[in-house]
Amino acid sequence: MSVFDSAAAHIRSISPYQPGKPISELAREMGLEEAGIVKLASNENPLGMSERAKAAALAAITEVPRYPDGNGFELKQAVSRHHDLGMNQIVLGNGSNDVLEMVARALLGPGRSAVYSKHAFAVYPLATLAAGATGIEVPARDFGCDLDAMRAAIRDDTRVVFIANPNNPTGTFIEAGPLERFIASVPQDVLVVLDEAYSEYLPAALAYDSARWLARYPNLLVSRTFSKAYGLAGLRVGYGIGQPDVIDLLNRVRQPFNVTNVGLAAAVAALADQDFVRRSAELNAAGLKQLSAFFDGAGIGYIRSYANFIAFRAGDGAGVNQRLLQQGVIVRPIAGYAMPEWLRVSVGLESENARFIDALQKALA
Amino acid sequence: MSVFDSAAAHIRSISPYQPGKPISELAREMGLEEAGIVKLASNENPLGMSERAKAAALAAITEVPRYPDGNGFELKQAVSRHHDLGMNQIVLGNGSNDVLEMVARALLGPGRSAVYSKHAFAVYPLATLAAGATGIEVPARDFGCDLDAMRAAIRDDTRVVFIANPNNPTGTFIEAGPLERFIASVPQDVLVVLDEAYSEYLPAALAYDSARWLARYPNLLVSRTFSKAYGLAGLRVGYGIGQPDVIDLLNRVRQPFNVTNVGLAAAVAALADQDFVRRSAELNAAGLKQLSAFFDGAGIGYIRSYANFIAFRAGDGAGVNQRLLQQGVIVRPIAGYAMPEWLRVSVGLESENARFIDALQKALA
Repeated sequence: MSVFDSAAAHIRSISPYQPGKPISELAREMGLEEAGIVKLASNENPLGMSERAKAAALAAITEVPRYPDGNGFELKQAVSRHHDLGMNQIVLGNGSNDVLEMVARALLGPGRSAVYSKHAFAVYPLATLAAGATGIEVPARDFGCDLDAMRAAIRDDTRVVFIANPNNPTGTFIEAGPLERFIASVPQDVLVVLDEAYSEYLPAALAYDSARWLARYPNLLVSRTFSKAYGLAGLRVGYGIGQPDVIDLLNRVRQPFNVTNVGLAAAVAALADQDFVRRSAELNAAGLKQLSAFFDGAGIGYIRSYANFIAFRAGDGAGVNQRLLQQGVIVRPIAGYAMPEWLRVSVGLESENARFIDALQKALA
Repeated sequence: MSVFDSAAAHIRSISPYQPGKPISELAREMGLEEAGIVKLASNENPLGMSERAKAAALAAITEVPRYPDGNGFELKQAVSRHHDLGMNQIVLGNGSNDVLEMVARALLGPGRSAVYSKHAFAVYPLATLAAGATGIEVPARDFGCDLDAMRAAIRDDTRVVFIANPNNPTGTFIEAGPLERFIASVPQDVLVVLDEAYSEYLPAALAYDSARWLARYPNLLVSRTFSKAYGLAGLRVGYGIGQPDVIDLLNRVRQPFNVTNVGLAAAVAALADQDFVRRSAELNAAGLKQLSAFFDGAGIGYIRSYANFIAFRAGDGAGVNQRLLQQGVIVRPIAGYAMPEWLRVSVGLESENARFIDALQKALA
């Protein structure tokens, strides 16, 4: 028997995550110039990153020969002040993806299950499967979480519920009231993972402070990322906040040096530049309007989005995607999310959105 | 029941890895100036990093707002040329630590076991435990691997054997002949993980090319790191090489963006600067002589090392360590490796080694 065959069946059955196509890869494949390619496929920040974060990252390069601080003292201190929480309530991740995987490794396993919605972030089923646990996918309501159905789906062997708010790739949103009532209804030995990767894009009227819920719900873990509004996707920094005993548990399965020194330094500076985050959210709101107005005018179906991307109905998703790629426009096919007729476009600069609109019109013509 | 209590017993029993104390932490704790502290605790490269790698890292900062290439095309291409292997024989890791953990997640689990030596790298038992598998620790011979005993320890449920060569924290080395005979003797459904984090420090007479063994032994995986001789510890880049089906398996449990864009770029440039690696190895050889001569002269026991550190017998390891810290010298206590009377000192610059020697003499006086 080979090593491959000796792996457990649940490992052999994993299909790895399909990321957005990198610009360099499309350029190689199609013989295009990188500069002429518009990538709206990975929900990145079209404004780039804060100048302060960039300066901090550049300065940190001199420390590269040293291991990073495995305890992430300075970043935890900054996150602690940002959310008004203790430093023992924070776990740092190699992106929030890493936090989600730590949850799966610490709490899931054979004979255990995790609950998540249909059309939810692909890493929830992947991490659940990799841990050898059972994934319980709950049918969605209008492409968003059906909280009543999710509550009803929790079984005795359920240890984790994953909820993204706003949700990726659909952009749907659950208001604070129903969300908090849902969390309150979940048994205390089931961890609710509230993935807030896109929360910086919420308009003020809908924003809520889930950090304040932690004291009330000891089985809540909130994850955040520096990859979206903070513009540090390439450096892989995210974090989770929760009660100290939950954080302690995640730290037991955390790789000791999971975040780079450059990422730690850039994230501290990025967190301090909330003005950049506000500008990013404003640009995003304008871009959502620009894209929605186009979809409305063209009669193209789309899901109202509260994040920095929009899922729209392309019909032949794969074919339209290919015709966009040929024009140097990268969006994200979401057939893997059981939405083969849909594509997801990230909000870009006004000019990038216009380039996408033009290319889509040609692709659909 | 709380979330913590609901975690499996093997998770609750994990004691996280204890890293070398960062300079900033010692400075905070002891009220010392960072500039006056000598850190010889984490086997870092005292020469820093290649200027070419530094330039590549700085240039890559502009790409930070984008996700890294999850497939790591350019670095895999460079590694593929370096070892003359196919790109499908390479898996990239967030440090080689990440590769070791991927092995554990892909191949271990409840009802399975891993074999490793006493005094071997702490991540082997940690990753085994975190996967819910049984660790089989084989007594060492002269602080190094006892290959016959390790072979005999392999059970029907064993799926992985971990071997570091040279070994950390003891610095011991197994010559190519006996090592290859050992690999040949292991059942084909048991993966032999050969951790070569320190192989760049081997003198030419002892160096061997394990990449050439891969075709003969489909159950071999070799891991390498950019954290030691390449001087990129802060950027967390390592890789594994093996047969395509083993690599495929590891990619199934790999986090999709596990290596930063800055790390990918710096590693490509670092690999191209083998002259820097040679200079680093030469400096290290001189430092090993400097430290060994001191230990010999002072009658302090130590283990002959083939890596970039030396384990020496301090007697009261914790007390001597504390007295070194008070003098601003950080070495590594290795009580966690069942060596409470020993400390491990990394080879530094000649002046850093001298500073350590001076501080140790005072600490022992």
